[in-house]
Amino acid sequence: MSNTAKYLLGLDGGGTKTIARLIQVDSGQEWSAKCGATSLTNNFALAVENIAKICNTLFAQAHCAPENVYAVLGLAGACNEKVKNTLEATLPLHFCHVEVVTDAKTSLYGANMGKPIAVVALGTGSVGMRLLDDNTEVLVGGWGFVHGDEGGGAQLGLMAVKQLMHEIDANNQHHCPLGQYLSKQLGQDRQSLQQWLAKSTPTDFATLTEAIFALKTHCEVANNVLARHAENVEKLISMTVSDTNLPLVLMGGLAKPTIGLLSKTVVGSMVDAKGDSLDGACLLALQNYQRMNGDGLTSYAQ
Amino acid sequence: MSNTAKYLLGLDGGGTKTIARLIQVDSGQEWSAKCGATSLTNNFALAVENIAKICNTLFAQAHCAPENVYAVLGLAGACNEKVKNTLEATLPLHFCHVEVVTDAKTSLYGANMGKPIAVVALGTGSVGMRLLDDNTEVLVGGWGFVHGDEGGGAQLGLMAVKQLMHEIDANNQHHCPLGQYLSKQLGQDRQSLQQWLAKSTPTDFATLTEAIFALKTHCEVANNVLARHAENVEKLISMTVSDTNLPLVLMGGLAKPTIGLLSKTVVGSMVDAKGDSLDGACLLALQNYQRMNGDGLTSYAQ
Repeated sequence: MSNTAKYLLGLDGGGTKTIARLIQVDSGQEWSAKCGATSLTNNFALAVENIAKICNTLFAQAHCAPENVYAVLGLAGACNEKVKNTLEATLPLHFCHVEVVTDAKTSLYGANMGKPIAVVALGTGSVGMRLLDDNTEVLVGGWGFVHGDEGGGAQLGLMAVKQLMHEIDANNQHHCPLGQYLSKQLGQDRQSLQQWLAKSTPTDFATLTEAIFALKTHCEVANNVLARHAENVEKLISMTVSDTNLPLVLMGGLAKPTIGLLSKTVVGSMVDAKGDSLDGACLLALQNYQRMNGDGLTSYAQ
Repeated sequence: MSNTAKYLLGLDGGGTKTIARLIQVDSGQEWSAKCGATSLTNNFALAVENIAKICNTLFAQAHCAPENVYAVLGLAGACNEKVKNTLEATLPLHFCHVEVVTDAKTSLYGANMGKPIAVVALGTGSVGMRLLDDNTEVLVGGWGFVHGDEGGGAQLGLMAVKQLMHEIDANNQHHCPLGQYLSKQLGQDRQSLQQWLAKSTPTDFATLTEAIFALKTHCEVANNVLARHAENVEKLISMTVSDTNLPLVLMGGLAKPTIGLLSKTVVGSMVDAKGDSLDGACLLALQNYQRMNGDGLTSYAQ
């Protein structure tokens, strides 16, 4: 294998795990690796360490030099410009070309392999994105748990916990199955619920969603909470698709249970994702390579 | 003045200022003092220092010994049992009797001078309380900015900022006067608004309320936000009054502008507060004194 061959590196890095793929452009040969968290805003030093580790693992596997690699790193937390710039300045790897983007962007490019698409991601948070013909990207929502993310699992959990607050406010009675379940998990009274709230993270709220879905048919309150969740998701979808006719990809851990709550019209506009965030990162790396080398399509992209 | 005379001390302490009043029971003679913050959850060490300072100032003025004083300290943050217990164990003052309660409780007792009443406080946050015939106190709402406080100024500000988020999501256009005002204050685009959000506190959101009220007649969006605020406040009032016929006191910095938004029925059930949080603290100190000394009414309470 020639040390001067050209390579693409795509990386999809999140708060718990990271996957990366190295591709030799001419042959299409691929190498893959996994490692731990590379979220830039959770633990920056660990992210740098893990990115360097996973890249060097791949370089060793492929016997390639970083100087020949066109890399795109799709990282959670890269929407923070300052942190992103610090990473680009700090990274101890001498790529031919490297671009740090958000994992949202790599998901968007992966969903329809770079073709126009609307994507709504439902996880702990929620965010919508659309990619237009001219490669314009539009972000919708994704304002975070405290100020937004109304279609996400954390907000769904919070809506349920608010029902428990309501029952506590109305004389400490936990009538409905949802209230009874939550009071057992989080606390029976104001004092214990407030202690739970003081320590709770968006993830803690999101872990309640499974039980809320499970109570759908037995509990009117759970059912109402899920109806409001569906309304929030449909609003986010409508804002994301906007006045376009783009097909819609729904992704993230909360996508599957939520689809059953949505209207037939919305479900009818949905398509399966063609690729994932890692595919999107590799595609963006290819586009960079092509732009910089004036190439047309390569064997990888054909 | 006798050093063995009995005294009452009431204190109303918050996140910015503290006021206290010392009363000689038999003569009704009063001494007052002010000092800085004594919120237990903001800066505990400063709170202890300021409480000791303001009390010692009053003891010096009245030439009285703390051993003769029945004190009630109404403090922001005293709903946290652990912090409250630490304060009672730490306080370097040897009162005859001292009780640490929340400033919400002292407000409740002040509002109708210990008689049954429903009180809704609208400030940065929001909380409802009712005091029943048998001295039962019931707390409603007050779950804090992230999880509740829907009638407070911070949530009103957030509702307005969500309109700006909505305008940014819908292609960066700031059509309405409220959106235009907020984009000038907080940021014109997603990046700058997100920077503001990352640093913003509930107080920052609450400072936007004045502008929202000022735009009421010129801006339909501001008007809609205020209508939702009024709905939230009426819901909190209804939960607080519950199935009682208690008269209602609306208090806090947001009470006055909000009254103009409420229905005639709700406004018709309102009465003026008879006293404030400091009056409530002094009343509770008197009740403790009477209970411990088996006294009837004193000259102060008559």
